[in-house]
Amino acid sequence: MAQNEFAIIQQYFSAIGVPAASTVLGIGDDAAVVEVPAGFQQVVSMDTLIAGVHFPTDTSPADIAYKALAVNLSDLAAMAATPSWFLLSLSLAHTDPSWLEAFADGLRQTATEFDLQLIGGDTCHGALSISIQVAGLVPAGKFVTRAGASPGDLILVSGELGGAGLGLAHLQGHIDLPEELRANCLLALNRPRPRLELTDFLRQFASAAIDISDGLQGDLAHILKASHCGARIDLAAIPVIPWIEHQDLYHFALGAGDDYEICCIVPPKHRAEIENWNRLHPHCRLSTIGEITDSGFDLRIGKQITDLSDARGYRHFE
Amino acid sequence: MAQNEFAIIQQYFSAIGVPAASTVLGIGDDAAVVEVPAGFQQVVSMDTLIAGVHFPTDTSPADIAYKALAVNLSDLAAMAATPSWFLLSLSLAHTDPSWLEAFADGLRQTATEFDLQLIGGDTCHGALSISIQVAGLVPAGKFVTRAGASPGDLILVSGELGGAGLGLAHLQGHIDLPEELRANCLLALNRPRPRLELTDFLRQFASAAIDISDGLQGDLAHILKASHCGARIDLAAIPVIPWIEHQDLYHFALGAGDDYEICCIVPPKHRAEIENWNRLHPHCRLSTIGEITDSGFDLRIGKQITDLSDARGYRHFE
Repeated sequence: MAQNEFAIIQQYFSAIGVPAASTVLGIGDDAAVVEVPAGFQQVVSMDTLIAGVHFPTDTSPADIAYKALAVNLSDLAAMAATPSWFLLSLSLAHTDPSWLEAFADGLRQTATEFDLQLIGGDTCHGALSISIQVAGLVPAGKFVTRAGASPGDLILVSGELGGAGLGLAHLQGHIDLPEELRANCLLALNRPRPRLELTDFLRQFASAAIDISDGLQGDLAHILKASHCGARIDLAAIPVIPWIEHQDLYHFALGAGDDYEICCIVPPKHRAEIENWNRLHPHCRLSTIGEITDSGFDLRIGKQITDLSDARGYRHFE
Repeated sequence: MAQNEFAIIQQYFSAIGVPAASTVLGIGDDAAVVEVPAGFQQVVSMDTLIAGVHFPTDTSPADIAYKALAVNLSDLAAMAATPSWFLLSLSLAHTDPSWLEAFADGLRQTATEFDLQLIGGDTCHGALSISIQVAGLVPAGKFVTRAGASPGDLILVSGELGGAGLGLAHLQGHIDLPEELRANCLLALNRPRPRLELTDFLRQFASAAIDISDGLQGDLAHILKASHCGARIDLAAIPVIPWIEHQDLYHFALGAGDDYEICCIVPPKHRAEIENWNRLHPHCRLSTIGEITDSGFDLRIGKQITDLSDARGYRHFE
């Protein structure tokens, strides 16, 4: 695709998103040039989506573009960074103008919505895959890692878990979702919302955070490992749609992933700020699902305690 | 590969290369955190290599790792930036420990040689491909684009052209290279050297620059387009191995690409600095191959002039 590459970039990808004040030179040269304003640090992450692995091959190009950018933005959200720019490497089996146009439109809408700009990258010939590298800014020292949790801190989760997993299981024919749930679960799968609205809250109050891409159980375990502590969570407190509760399908909330909600750890002295957040942001509610302990990883189900420390802890629900 | 991903990163990719003073948080969290020192700008680029497209599928893992990083570093070299860190997205069809070990070793050696560090990325399941995003630093305003060439400026090329193209044509059975040339041409193909030693020279003296990834003819055309001017180059002045000259295989030097030498444009007042560079750097000689003109794109072959303005200008040699 060497000859075509420049034409594709020129035609479809030369004006996507909103330029940051800190971008000196955008798309079209050997590389792009950016600045980081005094007093800020840059947060960078890269994630690849591959057709048939990270999304069904018949997913719409606009949904693919949205999700490829959104999962990267979710990493910035989990670090409490504000997006500024991204690079795209797009591998395509064949050059289909209508696909490219729909993909570029989806990317343009998403980049504009989340206020960042495409400043470079490449296109090449191969199986459909999308690598995006995203960068954001954070006031120096205000980024939030997985490593700051302490015993007694509260464990919070944004939004509702399990929707994306249910959507995928439905598409794969593993479950039959009631019709009234389908649209929302497919939306959760195809259009996960990076929780960038939490950025200021995390900078001010969180001791640790992660985005839930692989499931609450696995992602919270990353925080516990990095912070050298344990946790006890309460099944009944995990925010799920009522259908998950009725059907006892909690493994979609605990293990399915792809929800891209934020799991954050907040010292209990900030309870009032959590309540205040929830009053002001009913669409991005933070649910307190448990607390950090010295060691172990326990799930309370009514009066029963299950050890989640090994990955199979919750297997009996599957 | 969700479960395996963390183990792979931990085992193979957690300590690769040399940390920059500006790296605040490296591999292992949702994202990495870096700083840009006051008075500097950051130069960023991303390139993907796909098995069977950018390298033969039986290329050694160490050569793949080297080349994936080197082609990205070459973009930094063309912008006159000094490498500081990179992100890796690695897609693998299956987890082969000996392949991964050799790949990580190759990446480690290359990153150490060029003094930068792997600070993040991801691994996933799919056809073998390697996306690398690289970042470097340049004193504010000292980066070199494709857009600064002026009529009268000299056109320079580093090293020798055509070796990588000959190596690939030999592997593909299109030509039969004399035995004494094979090793060097395969080295040019598999181990192209990013010309980072030119960084200071470019910052001081170059009005424009590009790395020769797609062939001199196409890449110089990018400079002419961005700089709104023309060029006249002299076939006899293009640096090639004598065999290309004897066999009249100049299209490998003009069109084959993959050499990753630098084509830079330097105002004629800096002739003395060019001579001085060549005296001090015999292994990275800069050859003057022509000059920038008002318009057109001409190749002088003895007394004959060929117009290269359309991509087919040199076709009669193929």
